[in-house]
Amino acid sequence: MGEERREPAAAEAAARVAEQARELQDAAAGLLSRAWAEEEALRRRAAALEAELARLRKAAAHADSDKVEEDLDRATCLISDGDIASLLPSKTHGTFLKMFLGPINLRAPRKEVQLKVKEEYNSYRDRTALLFLGFPMILLFLRSWLWNGCFPVLPVQLYQAWLLFLYTTLALRENILRVNGSDIRPWWMCHHYCAMLMALISITWEIKGQPDCSRKQRGVELFLCWAVMQGFAMMLQNRYQRQRLYTRIALGKARRMDVVWGETAGVEGQLLLLCPVLFLLQGFEGYVGFLLLRTAHTGIVPEWQVVVCGILLIAMAIGNFANTVDTLMAKSRFKAKKKSKGKRDPDTCNSPTGLSPTNSTARA
Amino acid sequence: MGEERREPAAAEAAARVAEQARELQDAAAGLLSRAWAEEEALRRRAAALEAELARLRKAAAHADSDKVEEDLDRATCLISDGDIASLLPSKTHGTFLKMFLGPINLRAPRKEVQLKVKEEYNSYRDRTALLFLGFPMILLFLRSWLWNGCFPVLPVQLYQAWLLFLYTTLALRENILRVNGSDIRPWWMCHHYCAMLMALISITWEIKGQPDCSRKQRGVELFLCWAVMQGFAMMLQNRYQRQRLYTRIALGKARRMDVVWGETAGVEGQLLLLCPVLFLLQGFEGYVGFLLLRTAHTGIVPEWQVVVCGILLIAMAIGNFANTVDTLMAKSRFKAKKKSKGKRDPDTCNSPTGLSPTNSTARA
Repeated sequence: MGEERREPAAAEAAARVAEQARELQDAAAGLLSRAWAEEEALRRRAAALEAELARLRKAAAHADSDKVEEDLDRATCLISDGDIASLLPSKTHGTFLKMFLGPINLRAPRKEVQLKVKEEYNSYRDRTALLFLGFPMILLFLRSWLWNGCFPVLPVQLYQAWLLFLYTTLALRENILRVNGSDIRPWWMCHHYCAMLMALISITWEIKGQPDCSRKQRGVELFLCWAVMQGFAMMLQNRYQRQRLYTRIALGKARRMDVVWGETAGVEGQLLLLCPVLFLLQGFEGYVGFLLLRTAHTGIVPEWQVVVCGILLIAMAIGNFANTVDTLMAKSRFKAKKKSKGKRDPDTCNSPTGLSPTNSTARA
Repeated sequence: MGEERREPAAAEAAARVAEQARELQDAAAGLLSRAWAEEEALRRRAAALEAELARLRKAAAHADSDKVEEDLDRATCLISDGDIASLLPSKTHGTFLKMFLGPINLRAPRKEVQLKVKEEYNSYRDRTALLFLGFPMILLFLRSWLWNGCFPVLPVQLYQAWLLFLYTTLALRENILRVNGSDIRPWWMCHHYCAMLMALISITWEIKGQPDCSRKQRGVELFLCWAVMQGFAMMLQNRYQRQRLYTRIALGKARRMDVVWGETAGVEGQLLLLCPVLFLLQGFEGYVGFLLLRTAHTGIVPEWQVVVCGILLIAMAIGNFANTVDTLMAKSRFKAKKKSKGKRDPDTCNSPTGLSPTNSTARA
């Protein structure tokens, strides 16, 4: 009898739950379609406003009125960096992301989530910087301590495969940050594409053994020395950028859409340390590229991979140098402008120098 | 004087635009926070309902009442596959996506967008199937026609690098589909991870030239033959899956949340063709793996890469076979059940067999 009484109770409870699930489904469908309709309306307003802005900017091009320019800049910043931006179709969803992920929306709708993504990216860079420093150091150490001056093939190839993975993930994550409104410089992305290519090519690069391996493995050795320095610079850089991001988040709470004037105040000293290290590293990068070309030319390691890696390293060194100088100049231009006019830089909304928290002065 | 009159007009227009931008920003911020609050409320309701469901299911485990079971299944389906599902935190955001992209939300909020992602994935598979068929065929053709029976290193390595890229993108896209509610079988993802590993290893695999290259390059040749068959099977499979997806979208419009009974009706005949081809291919895959192991054992190509690739191919062949058989058995079990009881399968909401549009009977 207990069994019989339980049956209808269970049936009732199940029916009630099914009914509640249907209500929940209806509520969710309603919310989604209402939100979609409202978003569409806002998107239309934003599109109209953007068109109007472009028209006014064209008309005001010769006027040289500070007030007009400031108003237009403020409107541009609000549209491109405010909450409305997360509703607009992303213009920066590049070929790279489409190739790897297809046309999926990667834009986080809320500013807090975007900042969380940025912070996670920074902590990812912290973790990889340690590996970046440790991996080649261990290889170099084991070579003289255990391997009698000769790299075995497998550990080096594992390291190269890891580099390929690392640069692919960095490129993907930076593309995602860009979609989410980070003003990362295109060059640093291009740099990671070059590094991906170099890692891929280096995997196919045959690592010769005895006899006379120290001569034949000169290219690998140079590459690893460069990687050690690179890891060191990455750690310095991460420290610098992390402090800038924290400053920005703290200030962002108070006035999220404003230009963060005092942003770099506390880390000025670190930049003085960072810059020479970066220039040194870039010089060394180019020098390693040159040495690789020379080993290929003199016929010690006459493979095409060595030549291409050498050229890529030199190209990356030049690009890095040009971009670091450009960023520093933008910074000093901005400072001069700020002193003379107290005016915001029209190109950037968040950061006075184009050095956003996630990009950098300086990817070496 | 014309200049002077234009100035204030421009200033007014600029101020108006700045004001409109601020209004738009406020509207967007308001919409986002309102939508967020409503979503949170729905999420709480869904969590409570899920707990209640689990409790009832436990209590009803021994009751064997069709009515109760049906109600519970309906509620489960609504929560796991309805509009509410897109608001709940995804349980399937796996390690692979976290490794490559970090903790970014990849769930499309609208069912239409999810279906579009699926369709794009299918068309991506169509395009790659063509390349998958064409690339190794061209290599095999050029070998006998232009290269005198000997593969040069670069084109083969380019092909292997492309394979690595292809399997990485497929694995990423399938993970994204899974996050968006596709019931793709875990094995097919695992299969793509194995294929990624194999492509990476094959890049490091040294391709020897003259003399006697046809003997030394036996492994590469076998691998390419397998790839040609693979491309052929992919094209057949894509045709089959595409028709199923279209059927589902068409039916989905009418009754989106219901079980799609008649889904496979029109493509039954194609499955009869597909299955033998798949079994043949799986047999061939295992056979190529076996041949690779034999060439390594007899010392023709004694590298570890050949051994690992051989083992991976055999493992993939066995896994594919087991999964295809399992899927076919689930299909026939489901048919029998449908005949005897006219009852829905509790494991699936959209598809009667666990053969979702995007996974398949059958990834070879």
